[in-house]
Amino acid sequence: MAQKRLLVDMDGVLADTYQQFFRLESNITGKKIQREDVIGVSEADAFPNYLSYVHKAGFFRDAPVIENAIEVMKKLNNVYDIFIVSSAMEFPNSLREKYDWLQEHFPFLHWKQIILCGSKIPVQGDILIDDHFKNLDYFKKTTLLYTQPHNMGRDKGHQRVNNWKEIESILL
Amino acid sequence: MAQKRLLVDMDGVLADTYQQFFRLESNITGKKIQREDVIGVSEADAFPNYLSYVHKAGFFRDAPVIENAIEVMKKLNNVYDIFIVSSAMEFPNSLREKYDWLQEHFPFLHWKQIILCGSKIPVQGDILIDDHFKNLDYFKKTTLLYTQPHNMGRDKGHQRVNNWKEIESILL
Repeated sequence: MAQKRLLVDMDGVLADTYQQFFRLESNITGKKIQREDVIGVSEADAFPNYLSYVHKAGFFRDAPVIENAIEVMKKLNNVYDIFIVSSAMEFPNSLREKYDWLQEHFPFLHWKQIILCGSKIPVQGDILIDDHFKNLDYFKKTTLLYTQPHNMGRDKGHQRVNNWKEIESILL
Repeated sequence: MAQKRLLVDMDGVLADTYQQFFRLESNITGKKIQREDVIGVSEADAFPNYLSYVHKAGFFRDAPVIENAIEVMKKLNNVYDIFIVSSAMEFPNSLREKYDWLQEHFPFLHWKQIILCGSKIPVQGDILIDDHFKNLDYFKKTTLLYTQPHNMGRDKGHQRVNNWKEIESILL
């Protein structure tokens, strides 16, 4: 039987971009933003200097990996036809950085499994794990909404997952 | 009515990579390979130093644009929901180069319309213009085979187009 095609977002699902947001915002302003302050607020609105650092070299390359993502992805990669699907084109610096980041942290993924795009609408599969409604709402099959502060408080009909252990128990 | 989604390959369809192959091979070896010598031969087999220059900085950035591609794409972009879908992940240098190349030659395309991938299999639309059977054979809907030396002599059931004027007359 053909493996199911599983599409996995990067930022906010594999890469802990919020840790980067909190750290860099604090470096620039000296002010520590708390997680509870940014619930339900878009990333661009939550962090006043958002645009300055997502366009800066190194922002994506240096992002920490979200807990348990590597070990669970390794298991999923044996069972599913996995593609990493990441919106990268808005930030051209991020193209090479995202490739290098995946090579470092997810070396078991082949380059054929990476898709860097603008809009995700033409990319189809059986399951999509993503933290943004703008991607999940267009997806035709099973969706998993990965919890991040900006999406808390509503699920718009998508199944919510709070961490990679929950993904493991649903998909494996 | 929703616009049809048209997927357009870059290398060998928008970008004249063969001109690069001929030029660079001649620079390296001093030997001029003729177009008739490489009919039906894969690019990697036709050009002995293929791997050395596709991995070199500038190869994709400096490629000439295929004749009439810009003017016809401009017209198509008003009528179709266009996405550029390019296999770039094998050559990580090419990621930024392809983005910059599109910005220079096709500035009327939005970054949301660019998809750089490894495999094109998960990317779906209504029409695909491509020069490689490995992409066309997996596509579920209408395919247009763009003539390049490596694909001459067989069409495997795909409709062949020899230049952008032919694409214009078919799609517009």
